[in-house]
Amino acid sequence: MVTHEFTPDVYYGSMGSHDPVLRIREGDTVETTTVDAGGLDATNERITPGGNPMTGPFFVEGAQPGDTLAVRLDHVRPNRRRGWSGSVVAPNVVDPEFVPELPQRQTSEWDVDLNAWLATSLKPESSIGPIRLPLAPMIGCLGVAPARGEAISTATSAQHGGNMDYRGCIEGVTMTFPVFQEGALFFIGDGHAVQGDGEIVGSGIEISMDVAFTVHVLKGKVSGWPRIETDQELIALGNARPLDQALQHATTELMRWLETDYGLDYVASSMLFGQAIRYDIGNVFDPAYTVAAKLAKRWLP
Amino acid sequence: MVTHEFTPDVYYGSMGSHDPVLRIREGDTVETTTVDAGGLDATNERITPGGNPMTGPFFVEGAQPGDTLAVRLDHVRPNRRRGWSGSVVAPNVVDPEFVPELPQRQTSEWDVDLNAWLATSLKPESSIGPIRLPLAPMIGCLGVAPARGEAISTATSAQHGGNMDYRGCIEGVTMTFPVFQEGALFFIGDGHAVQGDGEIVGSGIEISMDVAFTVHVLKGKVSGWPRIETDQELIALGNARPLDQALQHATTELMRWLETDYGLDYVASSMLFGQAIRYDIGNVFDPAYTVAAKLAKRWLP
Amino acid sequence: MVTHEFTPDVYYGSMGSHDPVLRIREGDTVETTTVDAGGLDATNERITPGGNPMTGPFFVEGAQPGDTLAVRLDHVRPNRRRGWSGSVVAPNVVDPEFVPELPQRQTSEWDVDLNAWLATSLKPESSIGPIRLPLAPMIGCLGVAPARGEAISTATSAQHGGNMDYRGCIEGVTMTFPVFQEGALFFIGDGHAVQGDGEIVGSGIEISMDVAFTVHVLKGKVSGWPRIETDQELIALGNARPLDQALQHATTELMRWLETDYGLDYVASSMLFGQAIRYDIGNVFDPAYTVAAKLAKRWLP
Amino acid sequence: MVTHEFTPDVYYGSMGSHDPVLRIREGDTVETTTVDAGGLDATNERITPGGNPMTGPFFVEGAQPGDTLAVRLDHVRPNRRRGWSGSVVAPNVVDPEFVPELPQRQTSEWDVDLNAWLATSLKPESSIGPIRLPLAPMIGCLGVAPARGEAISTATSAQHGGNMDYRGCIEGVTMTFPVFQEGALFFIGDGHAVQGDGEIVGSGIEISMDVAFTVHVLKGKVSGWPRIETDQELIALGNARPLDQALQHATTELMRWLETDYGLDYVASSMLFGQAIRYDIGNVFDPAYTVAAKLAKRWLP
Repeated sequence: MVTHEFTPDVYYGSMGSHDPVLRIREGDTVETTTVDAGGLDATNERITPGGNPMTGPFFVEGAQPGDTLAVRLDHVRPNRRRGWSGSVVAPNVVDPEFVPELPQRQTSEWDVDLNAWLATSLKPESSIGPIRLPLAPMIGCLGVAPARGEAISTATSAQHGGNMDYRGCIEGVTMTFPVFQEGALFFIGDGHAVQGDGEIVGSGIEISMDVAFTVHVLKGKVSGWPRIETDQELIALGNARPLDQALQHATTELMRWLETDYGLDYVASSMLFGQAIRYDIGNVFDPAYTVAAKLAKRWLP
Repeated sequence: MVTHEFTPDVYYGSMGSHDPVLRIREGDTVETTTVDAGGLDATNERITPGGNPMTGPFFVEGAQPGDTLAVRLDHVRPNRRRGWSGSVVAPNVVDPEFVPELPQRQTSEWDVDLNAWLATSLKPESSIGPIRLPLAPMIGCLGVAPARGEAISTATSAQHGGNMDYRGCIEGVTMTFPVFQEGALFFIGDGHAVQGDGEIVGSGIEISMDVAFTVHVLKGKVSGWPRIETDQELIALGNARPLDQALQHATTELMRWLETDYGLDYVASSMLFGQAIRYDIGNVFDPAYTVAAKLAKRWLP
Repeated sequence: MVTHEFTPDVYYGSMGSHDPVLRIREGDTVETTTVDAGGLDATNERITPGGNPMTGPFFVEGAQPGDTLAVRLDHVRPNRRRGWSGSVVAPNVVDPEFVPELPQRQTSEWDVDLNAWLATSLKPESSIGPIRLPLAPMIGCLGVAPARGEAISTATSAQHGGNMDYRGCIEGVTMTFPVFQEGALFFIGDGHAVQGDGEIVGSGIEISMDVAFTVHVLKGKVSGWPRIETDQELIALGNARPLDQALQHATTELMRWLETDYGLDYVASSMLFGQAIRYDIGNVFDPAYTVAAKLAKRWLP
Repeated sequence: MVTHEFTPDVYYGSMGSHDPVLRIREGDTVETTTVDAGGLDATNERITPGGNPMTGPFFVEGAQPGDTLAVRLDHVRPNRRRGWSGSVVAPNVVDPEFVPELPQRQTSEWDVDLNAWLATSLKPESSIGPIRLPLAPMIGCLGVAPARGEAISTATSAQHGGNMDYRGCIEGVTMTFPVFQEGALFFIGDGHAVQGDGEIVGSGIEISMDVAFTVHVLKGKVSGWPRIETDQELIALGNARPLDQALQHATTELMRWLETDYGLDYVASSMLFGQAIRYDIGNVFDPAYTVAAKLAKRWLP
C-alpha cells in the first residue's frame, strides 16, 4: 500500500484503453491533480484542449473484466481561486416555447475561497448582485475504460461512469465501477467547486483540483453501474437519456445491490423503496443524463 | 374568517366543475376528513368507490380565472391505524428486461402509530422482517377545477394540480394553484402516512386523514403550475410525462416565480439554479409524472 | 338503419358525458358537418369558441362499457375553400438550441380546391412561392366519452380517442373505440384538408367539413385503444407522451388485436412485427402524441 | 476512379480511428463483403466475434474534418441462404405491464432465396406456420470515425452514423456522413435481408452480404447527421434516445439541408414540413434510436 504522488503530463478526452500513465496496486493511494473542464490548470493556464480532459488512466494490478473497482475519494479540493460557469440555463431544461426568452449565454466567473469556504460570482452582473454559495467540491467526471474497445467521450457517461456531473461524488465517499478492461484503467477530472442538481447551466463552478484516491479490487464482485457508498447511504447511479431510463437503470442497480450484499428479496427492497427511496438528478444536460437512487443505511438490517 | 367543520357525504373521482360541497371565503379555514385512495374511511369501511376519491370541491368566493388560490395545509394527520401500500416496484421504474424478475404484486398492510410516530409493515413477510419507518404524513392529490370544462381523473395531474403524489405536500406548507374556474373549486384527498420519492410501488402508505386548510385568493396573481412555499424553500411543481418534460415545466415555473415575486432576471435565476437548485421526483408512476424544482430562500435577496 | 341528417347547434371543447345531441341505433348513418379547429363554419364565420369544437356527442343505443364502437367514415370532405395552418414548426420538434433560429409564428392561409383536388398556400410568402399539395382530407379529432366521469379536452387524446391528428383517419376506413359510457357518446371534428406526419406546425390545413359516418356496436368485444381498419391494413393507435410510450401502447394493442381476432400467438405476431411492422407518427405536437402501429393484412393467414 | 475488390481479414466492433484496411480515392468503388451481426460469413462460419463486426475502415484520400463524405450503395445483396432473427418483441416496445406476458426469447431461422426474392421462416413454429416476406436487403450499420478520438460501439449510433438499423439504407441510395477524422474512415456491415420499422425483435433477418459502394468527398460541405438521397426523397437521420430527441435531430437536419442546398427559408420548409413531411422510425431497440425525416423532392422548386 503505497502513496503515489503523480504529476500528469497527458490528458485524455475519452475514456478508453489508452496507455496507462501509472500502474498501481490493491490498496494504493494516488495523489494527483486535475485540470478544469476547459483544460486550465492550477495557474489558470490552458495546458491541454478543453472538453473534460482526464487525468489517467491508472492501471490497477489484478483488476479483470467482471470484477468491480472501488475508489475512495480521499481528497477533493480546488487548487486555485478562479472558477467559471455557464450563466444561462440550458434550452433543454425549460419549456420549448420559453427558450426564445432566455438571455444570451456567456461565461460567469467566480472567486473560490477555500478559507471562507465560499464561492462568489464576479461576473456577469445579475439583478441581485454577487451570488455567494458555500463550497461543495465534487468530481464531475470519473470512471474506467468501457467494454468492446470503446473510447467514450468525456462529454457523456454510461455503465463505466464518465461525465455524470453528480454532486454526490465528493470527498470521503467510496465509489465503485464495473471493470471492463484488464487493469480497469481509472480516469478522473472535471472538478466543480459547487454544482446544483442537474448541472442545468451546463457546468458547475469549473475548477482545477488537488485530488487523492485509494483503490481496491473487489475480485469476482459483479456490478452493472457506478455506485457510491457514504456513511449514511447506498447510492446507485444510472446514466442514459431520457431521465426515465436513467432512473430505471439506477433503481434496478440498487435493487440488485441490496439483493447480493444485504440479502433483500425484491419484496423487501420494493417495500423499502416504495416508502423510503430518494432520487437525485445528477445531470440533465449532458448527452446521457444521470439519476441517483439512494437508500439510507439505517433502514437496512 | 370562519372555521368550517365539514363532513363530506359525496366524493369525486375527477377534478372538474362539479357542484360545490361548501362555499367559503377569503381567510376561511376548513376542517374535514379524507378517505384513502381506495375509498375507505377512518373506520376502514369502503364508503365510496376507489381511485383517489376527493373531498370537495370547495367554492372560494371571489376566486376568478386568472387569479391564484393559496391553500395553507394546517393539519394533515392519519385518523386510523391501518394503512396499505403496494409491495412491488412498478414495471416502468426498472429496466424493461428486468420486469420478468419482479414478484407478483400484492397489497401490503401497515400499522400506523401516531403516538410512536411510526409505520410498521404487517404483511407480506419480507426477507428482512417488519419494516419500520417514521411517519411523514402528506396529501397525494389536491388541486382545483381545470379549464375548458375538463374533468380530469384523480389518477393523474396537470396544471390544476391533481394526483401529484409528492412527499412535499405536508402540514405547514402553503400551496398555490392557478384558478381556472369561478370559485376555484378546491379538492383534497389521497393521504399517505409515508411515501418515498417517485411513489414507485404505486402508492404511499394509503390512509384516511383528518385535514384542515386555510384559503386565500391572490387576486390578479398569475401562476402556471402548483407551487409550494415552506419556511425554507420555494418549490415549483411540473406534471407531465416523461420526467424530462415535468422538469421543464417545474424549472420554467420557478424561473417565472423568481422574476415576478423577487425581481430576478433570467441571468440571476440561472446563476442561482445552476449551482443551487434542487430537484425532487414527486411521482414516476401516475399517468403524469411530477418533478419539483426547489430553491432555498436563503439564497434570495 | 336510418340516415340522419343532423345540423349541430352546440359544440363541445371536451369529450365527456355531455347531453347527447342525437340518439342513433346500430347500423345508422349520420350526415353532418364539423367546424374547423378555430370554430369557423362553412361560411368562414366563427360560430363557437376555438380549440377543436366537436360535433356530437351521438348516443349509440345499446353500446355499454366493455363493448367496442365501430365507426365507418363514409364521407370526409372540406365544405369551403379557405383553410389555414401554422407556418413555423413547433419548438418541441427541433433541437432545443435551434429554437431561437425559428421565425415568428403566424397563420398561413390556403386555398382548398376540391375540383382540382389541390391546396395552394396564399400567405405568408415563402422563399419558394406558393406551395401546392394534393388534398388528403382527414379528421383530426374523434372519439368517445372517457371513463370515470372524465371530460378530456379536445386538445389532447387518450384511450378514448380525441385529438390524435393522424392522417390515417380518412374517408373509407373503419375506426373502433373502446366504449366507456352507456351510449358510447361519439364526437367528431377538427378536419384537415392535408396534414403531414406529426402535425409539426401545430395544425394541418384546418377546415370545416361535411362528414358522414355509420356506427356499429361490437357487443362484448374488448379493445384498449382506437383502431383503424382499411382494405389493406390493421392499424392500432397509441396516445401518450413521449413517443416511446405512444409506440408501446400501439404495439401492445396491435399484438392483442392479432391474438383475439386472428389467433396469432405472441411468437407469430412478434415474427411478423419484427420484419413487417410499419409505424406512423400521427402527431408529435399535442399534449399526448400519437403513434400508429400498422400491419398489412396480406401477411395474415 | 478505380474499382477495388477487397477481401476483409479484420473486423471492428467499434467505429473509431482504427488503422485503415484500404486507402481509396474520390470516385473509387469498393466491392467487398460483410459478415452478419454475429460474425458469420457467407459459409455460415463464425470468423470473428459477434456484435455487428464491421468491414473497414476505408480511408478516403482528401476527406478532412468539416467535409462530408458521400457513399453510394451500389450493391447490397445477401450472399448466403441462411438468415436469423429474434422471435419476440423487445420489452421496451410494449407496455411495461405487458412484459411478463411475452414468451421466452429464442433465435428464429429463415431461408433467404434471392431467386424467389423471398424470406421464409424455418423455425420456431408459430401459430400461423411459416412466414413469407419479400426481400428488402439493407445495411444496418455504417458510418465514419467519430470526433474526439472516440471509438463508438457498433451496437449504437450517433452523428457519425453507426447502428441505425433503418430499412432505408438500401441499394441505389446515396448516403452522406459528416467527416470527423482525416480520411473519414468508412465502416460498413450488419446486413439485413428484411427488417420492419423499429427493428423491434432486436434484429432484422441477419445475413452476410456482398456489397459495393462508391465514395465522393464533398469538400467544405457541412452536415450534422447522416443523410440519404433517393430518386424520390431527401431523408435526414437523427440518432438518440428517446424517439422525441431522435426526431428533433432529424427534423432540424432536414431543415438545414433544405436551407443550404435548396434555398428554403424556415417559413418555406416549415410550411412544407407541416403538410408533407413523413417520418420513419428506423430503430427503437438499440441504445440510440433512429428517426428518419423525409421530404419528397417533387415538392421542391
